[in-house]
Amino acid sequence: MDSMTLIALISITIAGLTTGFGTMAPALAEGRAVATALSALAQQPDASATITRTLFVGLAMIESTAIYCFVVSMILLFANPFWNYALALAAGR
Amino acid sequence: MDSMTLIALISITIAGLTTGFGTMAPALAEGRAVATALSALAQQPDASATITRTLFVGLAMIESTAIYCFVVSMILLFANPFWNYALALAAGR
Amino acid sequence: MDSMTLIALISITIAGLTTGFGTMAPALAEGRAVATALSALAQQPDASATITRTLFVGLAMIESTAIYCFVVSMILLFANPFWNYALALAAGR
Amino acid sequence: MDSMTLIALISITIAGLTTGFGTMAPALAEGRAVATALSALAQQPDASATITRTLFVGLAMIESTAIYCFVVSMILLFANPFWNYALALAAGR
Amino acid sequence: MDSMTLIALISITIAGLTTGFGTMAPALAEGRAVATALSALAQQPDASATITRTLFVGLAMIESTAIYCFVVSMILLFANPFWNYALALAAGR
Amino acid sequence: MDSMTLIALISITIAGLTTGFGTMAPALAEGRAVATALSALAQQPDASATITRTLFVGLAMIESTAIYCFVVSMILLFANPFWNYALALAAGR
Amino acid sequence: MDSMTLIALISITIAGLTTGFGTMAPALAEGRAVATALSALAQQPDASATITRTLFVGLAMIESTAIYCFVVSMILLFANPFWNYALALAAGR
Amino acid sequence: MDSMTLIALISITIAGLTTGFGTMAPALAEGRAVATALSALAQQPDASATITRTLFVGLAMIESTAIYCFVVSMILLFANPFWNYALALAAGR
Amino acid sequence: MDSMTLIALISITIAGLTTGFGTMAPALAEGRAVATALSALAQQPDASATITRTLFVGLAMIESTAIYCFVVSMILLFANPFWNYALALAAGR
Amino acid sequence: MDSMTLIALISITIAGLTTGFGTMAPALAEGRAVATALSALAQQPDASATITRTLFVGLAMIESTAIYCFVVSMILLFANPFWNYALALAAGR
Amino acid sequence: MDSMTLIALISITIAGLTTGFGTMAPALAEGRAVATALSALAQQPDASATITRTLFVGLAMIESTAIYCFVVSMILLFANPFWNYALALAAGR
Amino acid sequence: MDSMTLIALISITIAGLTTGFGTMAPALAEGRAVATALSALAQQPDASATITRTLFVGLAMIESTAIYCFVVSMILLFANPFWNYALALAAGR
Amino acid sequence: MDSMTLIALISITIAGLTTGFGTMAPALAEGRAVATALSALAQQPDASATITRTLFVGLAMIESTAIYCFVVSMILLFANPFWNYALALAAGR
Amino acid sequence: MDSMTLIALISITIAGLTTGFGTMAPALAEGRAVATALSALAQQPDASATITRTLFVGLAMIESTAIYCFVVSMILLFANPFWNYALALAAGR
Repeated sequence: MDSMTLIALISITIAGLTTGFGTMAPALAEGRAVATALSALAQQPDASATITRTLFVGLAMIESTAIYCFVVSMILLFANPFWNYALALAAGR
Repeated sequence: MDSMTLIALISITIAGLTTGFGTMAPALAEGRAVATALSALAQQPDASATITRTLFVGLAMIESTAIYCFVVSMILLFANPFWNYALALAAGR
Repeated sequence: MDSMTLIALISITIAGLTTGFGTMAPALAEGRAVATALSALAQQPDASATITRTLFVGLAMIESTAIYCFVVSMILLFANPFWNYALALAAGR
Repeated sequence: MDSMTLIALISITIAGLTTGFGTMAPALAEGRAVATALSALAQQPDASATITRTLFVGLAMIESTAIYCFVVSMILLFANPFWNYALALAAGR
Repeated sequence: MDSMTLIALISITIAGLTTGFGTMAPALAEGRAVATALSALAQQPDASATITRTLFVGLAMIESTAIYCFVVSMILLFANPFWNYALALAAGR
Repeated sequence: MDSMTLIALISITIAGLTTGFGTMAPALAEGRAVATALSALAQQPDASATITRTLFVGLAMIESTAIYCFVVSMILLFANPFWNYALALAAGR
Repeated sequence: MDSMTLIALISITIAGLTTGFGTMAPALAEGRAVATALSALAQQPDASATITRTLFVGLAMIESTAIYCFVVSMILLFANPFWNYALALAAGR
Repeated sequence: MDSMTLIALISITIAGLTTGFGTMAPALAEGRAVATALSALAQQPDASATITRTLFVGLAMIESTAIYCFVVSMILLFANPFWNYALALAAGR
Repeated sequence: MDSMTLIALISITIAGLTTGFGTMAPALAEGRAVATALSALAQQPDASATITRTLFVGLAMIESTAIYCFVVSMILLFANPFWNYALALAAGR
Repeated sequence: MDSMTLIALISITIAGLTTGFGTMAPALAEGRAVATALSALAQQPDASATITRTLFVGLAMIESTAIYCFVVSMILLFANPFWNYALALAAGR
Repeated sequence: MDSMTLIALISITIAGLTTGFGTMAPALAEGRAVATALSALAQQPDASATITRTLFVGLAMIESTAIYCFVVSMILLFANPFWNYALALAAGR
Repeated sequence: MDSMTLIALISITIAGLTTGFGTMAPALAEGRAVATALSALAQQPDASATITRTLFVGLAMIESTAIYCFVVSMILLFANPFWNYALALAAGR
Repeated sequence: MDSMTLIALISITIAGLTTGFGTMAPALAEGRAVATALSALAQQPDASATITRTLFVGLAMIESTAIYCFVVSMILLFANPFWNYALALAAGR
Repeated sequence: MDSMTLIALISITIAGLTTGFGTMAPALAEGRAVATALSALAQQPDASATITRTLFVGLAMIESTAIYCFVVSMILLFANPFWNYALALAAGR
């Protein structure tokens, strides 16, 4: 196995794992936030405006951690600095 | 084992694992959200419009993390940059 | 072991694992949703129409994540791009 | 070990594991649904028709995920495309 | 180790594991259902007919997943297609 | 190591594990059922006949999964088809 | 390592593990049943006869799964069919 | 490493593990039973005779599973049939 | 494998894992904080200003730990001191 | 490595692990029993004699399982039959 | 692999893991503290000054453990004594 | 590696692990006991004498299991019989 | 790999792990203590002086265990006796 | 690798792990004790003297287990008997 194959293998593996596992916690956290929002709405329907607004700000905050993971995956697949270096090395060889 | 076989093996493996494990948390989170929505409906039937609307927005948000995983799997199976590079290399050889 | 055997082995393994593990969370989530629906029905029988409708929409949503896994398994077994490439390579050899 | 033996070994292994582990979550989910149905019946005997109907629809939904796993196992044991290809290859050799 | 020994080893292993682990969840689920039925009986003795009937239907449903596992084990021990193929191969050799 | 030794080793291992682990869940489930029965008796002593009858039916149901495991262990120790085949092979050699 | 040593090693290992792990769940289940019985006695001292009788039947039921494990261990240590076959083979050699 | 050393090593290992892990669950179960007994005594001091008697019967029952493990350990250390066979073999050699 | 490839492999792996796992806990913690905020809003709508302000300060605090992880990943991918040393060494060679 | 060294290594390892892990559960169980005793004393100070007596009997019972582990460790360190056999063998050699 | 590469590899790995895992617990703890603060605010809005002040002191305390981890990571990446020694050794060579 | 080094390595390892892990459960159990004692004191300040006395007896009992572990560690470090035997052997050689 | 490299590698690894994992429990414990302090403040604002003082003493106590870990890490990185011995050995060589 | 290096490696590893993991449980236990003390203070401010005194005795007791671990670590780093023996051996060589 030459170096380029190895870098490709690791990049694929880590890209998949980072997205696959890194989106677990945000999904669970969003489920919890949504669930509590629904309970809160049932308990205090008059405050629905405040509750919904706070919910959406919170979901955006939580979603941001999922997006960090997705960004790292995309960097590894399409803008991998080590892969680019290896490509340049291979082209110059 | 040559490089192409290895990349194919890893791509298959990671595509399956990313979807198989990455959809676990969204499913659980959606189950929780739906369950709470049903409790909320039973507790406050009059607010069913607000509850249902908030539920669907929340489910879409959670489903988005599952779709990230599915997208990564599909990229690995059908638009894999490393596989394409290896194909180009093999064709040019 | 030649490349085709390896790809076949991995495809079988991942197809089974993706379905076997990927359907766990949807099943648990559906169990939770159904259980809460039954509690809600017992608590508020008059809202049975709304509860049942919301339950079915939710179950469809959750089932969709199980179907993603099943789809990936079926792709790996019957429409595997890497296997097709290997077959074409073997046929052209 | 030749290729056919390997494919047979993996197919047996994955068929067993997929069924053995994949039916865990449905069983637990069904247990939960049945348990809640019994509580609901004890709490609201008059709504037994609605509760029982919703329970059976839910059990069918949950059982479907167990059946996905069983289907994959049966495909691997009796309609395995990779095994069929290997048989054809062996016959044509 | 020749192929037949390997297939025999794997078949024994998977048959045992599938039954050993696959019956865990049904047992726990049945325990939960029975426990809730007993609580329900203590709470609402008048509804014992409905409760008992629903319990038995539910137990049958849960037992079905245990039986899937047992069926796969028996297939692997006594009607294993790969073993039969190997036997035929050995007989024809 | 010849084939017979290997089959013996695996059979011993799997027979022990199947019984050792497979009886865990039934034991826990029976403990749960018995515990709930005792609570129910303390809560509603008048319904002791119904409770006891339902308990025994449920225990039998749960015990059945433990017995599946014990049966598989006994088959592996005393009626192992692969061992019998190997014995026949050794006798005929 | 000859075959007899291997069979002895595996038999010792599995005999210990089966008893060591297989008695865990029964012990926990019995602890739970006894604990609930004591609570029930404190709550309803008049029903002590029924409670004690049901407790002992339940403990016997749970103990049976521990005894399955102990029986398998004793079979492996003192009536191991594979060991007996090996002894006969060694004696006849 | 000759056979006798191996049997000695495995016997020591399994004897320790069986006792070390096998006494965990009984200890926890006894802790639970004693704890509930103390709660029950605080709640119903008049029933102390019945409670104490039931507690001791239950503790004896639970202790029995710990003793199974201790017995297996002692058998492995001081009455190991495989070790005795090896000793006889070594003496006769 | 030469040193540069190894450093690239490890950097990719750790960058992915640090982000993938390190954002789990912040996501869960934010989900919990948002959920409690929603409950608090439903319980005391008059204090929404204080609650929202405290929530945002807390979310920023929690997000900071996620950002530590993201920073370490970015350092490993784009400002890795060991990689730079290796590059300098390779350039000077 | 000769046999005596191996037996010494395993004996040290197992002696430590058996005590280290085997005293976990008794410690936790005693903590639970003591905690409940304190709650019971706070709830019913008049029954302190009965509670304290039952507590001490229970603690002795639980401590017995910790002592089984300690005894096995001491046997392995200071009265190890396999070590003694090896010593005798070495002395007689 | 020479020594410098190895030290670089380990430093990268440990720097990532220390930050990735070491910030988990602080994040969770801060989430819990913030959540309780929000509940406390909803329950007792008049004490908001004391609650907020105590919360910030506590968050600073908890954040300090996350900063220990970040400090160790930074030391390993940019002020690693073993790397510096190796550099000096390489320069002097 | 000669025998003495091996015995030293294992002794260090096991001494550390036995203390490191073996003191976990006592610490947790003591934490639980102390916590309950404080609750009990808050609930029934008049019974502080009995509560404190029972607490200290219980803590001594729990601490004893931690001391078993510490004793085994000290024996392994400073009075190791196998190490002493090896020293004697080395001295006599 | 020579001895010095190995000692450096292990020191880096253990320094990171000790800090990374050893600060987990203190962080969680502090989170719990702070959370309870906030609840206590909301429940009894008049006792804020006593509560705050006890909280800070407790936090200092808990922080001390985190500092033990940090101290061990710093010793391993900057005052490692084995590294110093190796340095002296290398200097004297 | 010679013996001294090995002993140094293991001593470093175990010293770190013993402190890193062994202080987890005390930290958690102290967190629990402090948390309960704060609750108790909020519930019964008049008994603050008794509560604080009992808390400090308990914390000292729990801290003692953390100190056992720290002592073992320090012994391994600075007063290691096996290291001293090896040093003496090396000096006398």
